Amino acid sequence: MQEPVVMKPIGVVHNSVKEPRREGWESLESTIVVEDRRASALDGLDAFSHIFVIYWMHRVSEEPRETTTHVHPRGDTRIPLQGVFATRSPVRPNPIGLRVVALLERRGNVLRVRGLDAIDGTPVLDLKPYLYHSDGVPDSTVADWIQDAAKDRSRPPSDERQRPES
Amino acid sequence: MQEPVVMKPIGVVHNSVKEPRREGWESLESTIVVEDRRASALDGLDAFSHIFVIYWMHRVSEEPRETTTHVHPRGDTRIPLQGVFATRSPVRPNPIGLRVVALLERRGNVLRVRGLDAIDGTPVLDLKPYLYHSDGVPDSTVADWIQDAAKDRSRPPSDERQRPES
Repeated sequence: MQEPVVMKPIGVVHNSVKEPRREGWESLESTIVVEDRRASALDGLDAFSHIFVIYWMHRVSEEPRETTTHVHPRGDTRIPLQGVFATRSPVRPNPIGLRVVALLERRGNVLRVRGLDAIDGTPVLDLKPYLYHSDGVPDSTVADWIQDAAKDRSRPPSDERQRPES
Repeated sequence: MQEPVVMKPIGVVHNSVKEPRREGWESLESTIVVEDRRASALDGLDAFSHIFVIYWMHRVSEEPRETTTHVHPRGDTRIPLQGVFATRSPVRPNPIGLRVVALLERRGNVLRVRGLDAIDGTPVLDLKPYLYHSDGVPDSTVADWIQDAAKDRSRPPSDERQRPES
């Protein structure tokens, strides 16, 4: 049993989405308000077109996180059950959200981004520059159920993002 | 001031690297030993060629994390100071490590991976399938100092990864 890890959020997400949802994040603009005292730690970030936002999916309660080992991706029972680590489901032991977003603007301690899949009020844990050199793996391959979903336009091949707690 | 976030590590890294270093991770093989009780949550992960490993850089002590706002990337004083969020420096408020790795094998609760930039004993917080559809952004652009470094073969364009605490 390893020691717990304690983190302090460094900022918070603001946008128009008040409840978890599965889709519709691509064109959404959000602001990330970083703590005032950490504003200068953003210096230079806006030299990158894209960044990773690492956040905490605070609406996922602890009980299902501890007991759920398998889920149907996107809640779609036509897709066989998968271990939670094989999915992007928020119901996982540590509901860490991870998303590459377009960085539109930085003003002081405030970032404006597009495509973040986090609801209003989400705590932000870290921000990192996106480096395609190491973060882009074009020859990577995915599970068949992702490819099958990609062929079906009614089920976009995006990852699960924040879904409603159920 | 937001509430602290508490996470329980889900596993631990084992490899031959006992001390933080800047480079030489690409071909390194590591195992990730996931807690026994969470083994089944890995079901289906090995259908993906690559995964994100999210880990905790436990060797970075708290004081420099709280007080350091700027660093020279890769400790190279020829590169102008950057805000820590504009770098992959481990010295950041929450030293979360993030790396795309090749998943070579899964046996029960043990994963064998290549390219993880974490030292032996590092706590693992989460594992996610890598989805190029959303995680690969080929038209992303980076800061000039990254591009300049890429031109100089003595300074590889990789991100900083775990560096020695100083």
